[in-house]
Amino acid sequence: MVAPSPQDVAVSTTRRIPGTNRLEAFSDGVVAIIVTLLIFEVRLPDVPANASNAEMLAAFGSIWPKFASFTVSFFTVAIYWVNHHNFFAGVTHTDWKLLWANNLLLFFLAIVPFTTAVLGDHLGQPIAVAAYALNLGLAAAAFTLMGWYVLLRARLIDPRISDPARRFEVRRSLIGTSLYLLAAPLGLVAPVAAELLFVAIPIAYIAPGLFGPIGAELRELS
Amino acid sequence: MVAPSPQDVAVSTTRRIPGTNRLEAFSDGVVAIIVTLLIFEVRLPDVPANASNAEMLAAFGSIWPKFASFTVSFFTVAIYWVNHHNFFAGVTHTDWKLLWANNLLLFFLAIVPFTTAVLGDHLGQPIAVAAYALNLGLAAAAFTLMGWYVLLRARLIDPRISDPARRFEVRRSLIGTSLYLLAAPLGLVAPVAAELLFVAIPIAYIAPGLFGPIGAELRELS
Amino acid sequence: MVAPSPQDVAVSTTRRIPGTNRLEAFSDGVVAIIVTLLIFEVRLPDVPANASNAEMLAAFGSIWPKFASFTVSFFTVAIYWVNHHNFFAGVTHTDWKLLWANNLLLFFLAIVPFTTAVLGDHLGQPIAVAAYALNLGLAAAAFTLMGWYVLLRARLIDPRISDPARRFEVRRSLIGTSLYLLAAPLGLVAPVAAELLFVAIPIAYIAPGLFGPIGAELRELS
Amino acid sequence: MVAPSPQDVAVSTTRRIPGTNRLEAFSDGVVAIIVTLLIFEVRLPDVPANASNAEMLAAFGSIWPKFASFTVSFFTVAIYWVNHHNFFAGVTHTDWKLLWANNLLLFFLAIVPFTTAVLGDHLGQPIAVAAYALNLGLAAAAFTLMGWYVLLRARLIDPRISDPARRFEVRRSLIGTSLYLLAAPLGLVAPVAAELLFVAIPIAYIAPGLFGPIGAELRELS
Repeated sequence: MVAPSPQDVAVSTTRRIPGTNRLEAFSDGVVAIIVTLLIFEVRLPDVPANASNAEMLAAFGSIWPKFASFTVSFFTVAIYWVNHHNFFAGVTHTDWKLLWANNLLLFFLAIVPFTTAVLGDHLGQPIAVAAYALNLGLAAAAFTLMGWYVLLRARLIDPRISDPARRFEVRRSLIGTSLYLLAAPLGLVAPVAAELLFVAIPIAYIAPGLFGPIGAELRELS
Repeated sequence: MVAPSPQDVAVSTTRRIPGTNRLEAFSDGVVAIIVTLLIFEVRLPDVPANASNAEMLAAFGSIWPKFASFTVSFFTVAIYWVNHHNFFAGVTHTDWKLLWANNLLLFFLAIVPFTTAVLGDHLGQPIAVAAYALNLGLAAAAFTLMGWYVLLRARLIDPRISDPARRFEVRRSLIGTSLYLLAAPLGLVAPVAAELLFVAIPIAYIAPGLFGPIGAELRELS
Repeated sequence: MVAPSPQDVAVSTTRRIPGTNRLEAFSDGVVAIIVTLLIFEVRLPDVPANASNAEMLAAFGSIWPKFASFTVSFFTVAIYWVNHHNFFAGVTHTDWKLLWANNLLLFFLAIVPFTTAVLGDHLGQPIAVAAYALNLGLAAAAFTLMGWYVLLRARLIDPRISDPARRFEVRRSLIGTSLYLLAAPLGLVAPVAAELLFVAIPIAYIAPGLFGPIGAELRELS
Repeated sequence: MVAPSPQDVAVSTTRRIPGTNRLEAFSDGVVAIIVTLLIFEVRLPDVPANASNAEMLAAFGSIWPKFASFTVSFFTVAIYWVNHHNFFAGVTHTDWKLLWANNLLLFFLAIVPFTTAVLGDHLGQPIAVAAYALNLGLAAAAFTLMGWYVLLRARLIDPRISDPARRFEVRRSLIGTSLYLLAAPLGLVAPVAAELLFVAIPIAYIAPGLFGPIGAELRELS
């Protein structure tokens, strides 16, 4: 056990509550509902009661943009959950500012079904693409803000985690945020290029942060 | 450890069950669903398949009242969750009356998506504004009732918490209740003024009660 | 600590798993979703954009049957949750038959939003009333079956709980089941009388079973 | 306590996190939402306000295909939950590949409300039947992949569980997967036969895996 660094003492003016259980449970609930409700935007168009196989296949084929945006949003939001899960595995305390940074993240995630539905109806439309990028960019920015607050500002994790590991994690989050926020203007001029980013960014974040330097330090300490 | 006060002994006629885990989990579930489903009232109007950017922006612009009422309701209900989270951090027991006070709170919160949808469709309409205010006022009243029952009547929290700290918390809750219940008649004559209250009241409650006198006493005792 | 009774030993042929956490979490989730989604059946009819207060009040007034059936169903399902909460506070083990008795209960509860919507659209219609009564009667029967299995058949609670207390609880559950199943044929000839039962039965079950004889014995043992 | 087998040491290159609580809570949430939302596809057709009993019964009768597919899907997804519940009772660690195998399972389960709605509208249509079979087959394949990864590849359960018991469990899962994937082409030529499989397969999986050889070994070890 190492003594808390001076910064950790210095910032302890905001009152802290031990544990993150209910914050995690509430976030799990919100994210579980978001990913599950996304499918309710995917509906087959009206098909006659005794439709032929060809008519039925055509109906399925006609909704591929909705299904594609459902799939991308499902896995994008699932990646937020995986990263949230791993991020909070290292957090030891909450304070009300952390609760609100998390609520801000959940707010932007809660909007994803709306922008996904718009994108599913207008897959190539520049404004629809930019709105989706802006939505995910603001969610990523809220996650970055939360990471900065927990790791560098209020220092609500194990004080023995090194500052370089903390900064690595915040920078990692900032890259995703920047890419989404760049995809918004890009979508206005080249919607397909922005949509390729919507597929590529989540893939880059599949292996979550706990398996990075903070996770390595936490495992050595335990 | 201080002996329970005479009042704490006197009121122990209703049977109590230790722990609040399932009450918290059920409340978390209900609130998570409410905040997440609010977005499903926000839908883009029908836009032609190959809409221009101008048509698309106009469609987004036309739903700003729905988006504004979604945003206010999201954060208002989120504040209930934050305060619920912090309130129950100090509660040690449940009894069936507490379960029902909590169910009454959840009942009024469950109606929020309905009054939010009405407000989103009729932002300046006096009856729509008054209905929203009444809904939130009844939810706040249920929270106040629950606080009064737990803190002053059944005394289901740590008996060492002082009576002035308990009364402070109930009075604090009563102010919000009163403001919403005043906003209902106000909305009938000045809808915009009532709507400014819908934005202002939550902001005043962002820093939750646990960081008030009860929280301070709990931290000194632990 | 008292030795398990012969019956408790005799029935231990089905494999048991200690703990009921995930069963409770899953049930909490299902019930939280049901009570929250009920409000989505309550919608204001279309009202002109600049509606007068009189038109708005008329719109609210026109949906009172939907609001009444929402309210009754919300508190009826909430009572199931309260009783479920208290019932499982005494259960120490699960086996696969208990999981399925619980799933059967959740199945009938999951149908409640459907029969509630039908009742809200056809408040006085005999078939609608009978369908609602049958739905709640089957849910109550599933709860009775689960209670009988846990208390008297597989004996998955503290073996020191007396047989009279167990039988009291099963009989108490059987009364509610019988009343709902009688309300179904009653609804066909006297819908209003059946609907009065829909209001009266939940009120009789507000004070839950844990505060009955099993709860009293559990508290003396702990 | 037995020493870990050489294989268990050999595969420990991917970083592991102890505990599966949040993975279970998130999965419980997603599955609870899926089973509860299925009923929202079941709606009575428009019936006149003062409908006769005969008209009302006809309306109920007309939606039996929706109700039948709701019922089959409810219990099929509930069986996934029961098996998931019992499977994770034996898992001691997670790593990011397990999180993603589980997310893949949840992805296919989240699609079930869509294919159920299609089947409810087109009960005898070959493409609708094949789509439902393919959906459930992919979900079963994801469960099999997860089982193989946990039991045989990453070995994230108690190392004392024997290899024959592990292989039994994976083979058991593979049978269900194969039956659903065979039901897809079968549905194209004989929809009713495939639909009988949709009823028969879940019944065969009602008694879950924990009560098989792994469960027996876990109970002997504890």
